[in-house]
Amino acid sequence: MKLYDCQFAPNPRRARVFLKEKGLDIPFQEIDIMGGENLKDDYLKINSTGLVPALELDDGNIICEVPAMCRYLEAQHPEPNLLGKDAYETALVEQWERFAEMNGMQAVGEVFRNQLPAFASRGLPGMSDIGAVPALVERGKNRVAAFYSKLEQRLTESEYLASDRYTLADITAMCVVDFATFAEMGIPEANTKTQKWHAACQARPSAQA
Amino acid sequence: MKLYDCQFAPNPRRARVFLKEKGLDIPFQEIDIMGGENLKDDYLKINSTGLVPALELDDGNIICEVPAMCRYLEAQHPEPNLLGKDAYETALVEQWERFAEMNGMQAVGEVFRNQLPAFASRGLPGMSDIGAVPALVERGKNRVAAFYSKLEQRLTESEYLASDRYTLADITAMCVVDFATFAEMGIPEANTKTQKWHAACQARPSAQA
Repeated sequence: MKLYDCQFAPNPRRARVFLKEKGLDIPFQEIDIMGGENLKDDYLKINSTGLVPALELDDGNIICEVPAMCRYLEAQHPEPNLLGKDAYETALVEQWERFAEMNGMQAVGEVFRNQLPAFASRGLPGMSDIGAVPALVERGKNRVAAFYSKLEQRLTESEYLASDRYTLADITAMCVVDFATFAEMGIPEANTKTQKWHAACQARPSAQA
Repeated sequence: MKLYDCQFAPNPRRARVFLKEKGLDIPFQEIDIMGGENLKDDYLKINSTGLVPALELDDGNIICEVPAMCRYLEAQHPEPNLLGKDAYETALVEQWERFAEMNGMQAVGEVFRNQLPAFASRGLPGMSDIGAVPALVERGKNRVAAFYSKLEQRLTESEYLASDRYTLADITAMCVVDFATFAEMGIPEANTKTQKWHAACQARPSAQA
């Protein structure tokens, strides 16, 4: 197996943390997103959406989209379980992982891409000729604030995001928070449950991935 | 079980089509999205993200997010299989279902919400006080065009979206295309593979859901 990766980007990090939690050590091939390598023909043959990461299997088949590759890897390597131990927990992991992605990752990305000169014509991941929309910086910041508020509410009810234990939902949410912090939108001081949860995620060796 | 539903909205339709394919006949409780019922406290207690649909189980537990509820339902009612028969097909279904949602549903929604006066302060699903951004109408149309182009490319390689048979990926993509058509962005005439695929999806009794 091989992971098409980009070390600085938050989305491929979800896959790297998951691999590390599984104890899987596979080669990474760096794709230069800043330089637009993901939008060129060679990479579009690997993933037509232009998104990084992509997982190449030993038979040459490719799996795109982080949750899809994690589900495949979990089927091959069931332990430690990160996607749910029964049907209901599995549903909660998927639900909260999507919460983190749609409300968190997309919101931070909206702020980041629409204010960075390097992405002036790349306002959306994987696409060329999508001009930045300055009004989305403000909108994205409001979305990030709403995400932090709902995350704190959830972590008041539950030790981890989906369940009482660490799962893929926490991996994605941690990658969101670290991306937000990099973009100067760190966890609000008053959100003590989120800070405690984040410290627990960061203390795991996989957080270095 | 009970589905919190909204008959006119494209997202809950994904769940209704899935239920019909499974032969599951459960009650629907209508939530008035246009009137903002999904943003009021009673519904936010059911789903804190304000999104419709939500699935209430017989024990009172709630599952939110369409793919999560479909995966739960598939575990309880494995036939007919709609999420993949082995680990690799399951990954492809998730990958292409996400393609349809992220590149299709979100793009059409961007056009729809940012130009409809009723959503002037609700530019994103499930959120209040997110003002419409007029520039997103044009951006959304460009995204829809790119979605149609990639969909046609995929359906040139594969009879159905994820596989050689009908799956959840086709359900979501059909709901996207019908939503786009309603918003006056129907399948381009030249996209003959997409038209043939869409006709096959529409011919299934579940398309009436």
